[in-house]
Amino acid sequence: VIVYKMHNIVIIVATGVCHTDLYHLFEGMHKDGFPSVLGHEGAGIVESVGPGVTEFQPGDKVIPLFISQCRECRFCKNPKTNQCEKGWASGRHAMMASADSRFTCKGKKVLQFMGTSTFSQYTVMNQIAIAKIDPTAPLDKVCLLGCGICTGFGAAVNTAKVEPGSTCAVFGLGAVGLAAVMGCKSAGAKRIFAVDINPDKFEKAKVFGATDFVNPKDHDKPISQVLAEMTNGGVDYSLECVGNVTVMRSALESCVKGWGVSVLVGWTDLYDVATRPIQLIAGRTWKGSLFGGFKSKDGVPQMVKAYLDKKVKLDEFITHNMTLGQVNDAIELMKIICSVPVSKS
Amino acid sequence: VIVYKMHNIVIIVATGVCHTDLYHLFEGMHKDGFPSVLGHEGAGIVESVGPGVTEFQPGDKVIPLFISQCRECRFCKNPKTNQCEKGWASGRHAMMASADSRFTCKGKKVLQFMGTSTFSQYTVMNQIAIAKIDPTAPLDKVCLLGCGICTGFGAAVNTAKVEPGSTCAVFGLGAVGLAAVMGCKSAGAKRIFAVDINPDKFEKAKVFGATDFVNPKDHDKPISQVLAEMTNGGVDYSLECVGNVTVMRSALESCVKGWGVSVLVGWTDLYDVATRPIQLIAGRTWKGSLFGGFKSKDGVPQMVKAYLDKKVKLDEFITHNMTLGQVNDAIELMKIICSVPVSKS
Repeated sequence: VIVYKMHNIVIIVATGVCHTDLYHLFEGMHKDGFPSVLGHEGAGIVESVGPGVTEFQPGDKVIPLFISQCRECRFCKNPKTNQCEKGWASGRHAMMASADSRFTCKGKKVLQFMGTSTFSQYTVMNQIAIAKIDPTAPLDKVCLLGCGICTGFGAAVNTAKVEPGSTCAVFGLGAVGLAAVMGCKSAGAKRIFAVDINPDKFEKAKVFGATDFVNPKDHDKPISQVLAEMTNGGVDYSLECVGNVTVMRSALESCVKGWGVSVLVGWTDLYDVATRPIQLIAGRTWKGSLFGGFKSKDGVPQMVKAYLDKKVKLDEFITHNMTLGQVNDAIELMKIICSVPVSKS
Repeated sequence: VIVYKMHNIVIIVATGVCHTDLYHLFEGMHKDGFPSVLGHEGAGIVESVGPGVTEFQPGDKVIPLFISQCRECRFCKNPKTNQCEKGWASGRHAMMASADSRFTCKGKKVLQFMGTSTFSQYTVMNQIAIAKIDPTAPLDKVCLLGCGICTGFGAAVNTAKVEPGSTCAVFGLGAVGLAAVMGCKSAGAKRIFAVDINPDKFEKAKVFGATDFVNPKDHDKPISQVLAEMTNGGVDYSLECVGNVTVMRSALESCVKGWGVSVLVGWTDLYDVATRPIQLIAGRTWKGSLFGGFKSKDGVPQMVKAYLDKKVKLDEFITHNMTLGQVNDAIELMKIICSVPVSKS
């Protein structure tokens, strides 16, 4: 094993599967992103550290970060953003992989997906992209904070900046959407509409704080109109957690004029998202969120602590526990769950 | 003359012509908005007051407001918005006219455009849509605060909330764009890019504070890329002051990732505006502004005062002085100025 300057070798103990893995495999149509070790929502233990590493020691519990935090670039120094420019993502969105992968297979280079590659027993990462977490944290739970839960929760709390007493709508009730519901609740929202075309999700959404459930399939009119009628003109905040440009439009147009804020949380980059200019001129704001706006090295340990303090739920998100050898089965399971067609939105 | 409860009769002394008049006449393709007395950027004197009017007396200098401020609705009570719901605009965008016009011609009802109709010697308006201004204000100058100058200036100051030391780009150098330049300068922007395909506008933009001039016709690449290269990744704030959905997209995509804010200021409602989701997910914010976000009755008198205190320029916007009888010639002049085709953006 070659040890790299400023890098750690991390033993991955647990990982979640995320729609972004699925997106890269089947939807994103990237030509250059393969072969690759997928997975980016993991937790593990530092096995060894390279020269120059001062913040970590072997044995530290850590979460790999697909958004780095170098603390030195102009993005890290600006409190308005979490989009560090030193990480793998700088200019490499098209292949969703870092430039400096250490993976090889039979002598051939294998890419490191999103700078992490957690579907692996070991991975090598720069210390700017690793968060040290509480040594008592259960890795098979807190791994979810490596992507989905921080993404949804933070989109509500950090990006939308949901205010106490407000009305929110969350579109799409996968892990990210459920975490967004939890974020709205945590921020003090009074009413949280959970919107999905799969009504089986509503029971779970209730666990995280949803107060109202809307299935677009139950209505003959656009969901934005349905929500406007239920809320005297629209919701204060909406969060799109699907990754579908039609739903993104609906989410924006479900907001009340004057001050409504809609946040794109779901990932897609295949099509344009559109609306009529009047929707924005009328006072709505359209934003997007990556990793929930959390400065990653700062935010992830705080979220781990919030979980340990029982302020954030994680266990309730987990539906299956499988071995690394079953990762392809896990991907298949997710494919089935995510393949519900969006017929109206 | 019938005097209406809570209404004033206003003698219009001066009025500007605005692209929105032109839009309604030739571009908006509204079927229901005619016949109509156009004009919405005026200043005048109260001639008489109806029963219940307490804030005004005959002789008061006033500016008619196409955005009302009733101070009672939930929009007026919310500091985040200026979009009072008691005015003409509630639900009547499609015809751009108020429901209760007092104009008739040969016994036939003539609509009151945008609740104001300043191309007239007299107009009747509800007191929630009239701002009393400093009695020393020259009406032939401050009439411009009835629309364009507040719209552009406020979009920078109130909606974009331009910060000191920032970099801005203003797309389109009509009166609204020039006022946006002035707003950016007033907010302390360090660098202000004035973007137009008519280089004759650059000299004027300099007067209002522009520091750099970019003509998209001079470049073979998209203007967003040109600006990104000139600014290390994009501007902090961009303002679209044209009313063209292609330019709106360019303006958004000219912003820096992480914290860039783009504001739609120009008016159009014929086509969708679009972008790739990643543009927002990367941390840009897309907003819109109507009347520069000014709560109208509060904001207009303050802007009049700012003009009298020489903190805001108005005289420099005026290119022609004409009589009311020449209003059709004024519209023709504007048509020529605005008809420059947008070939690349």
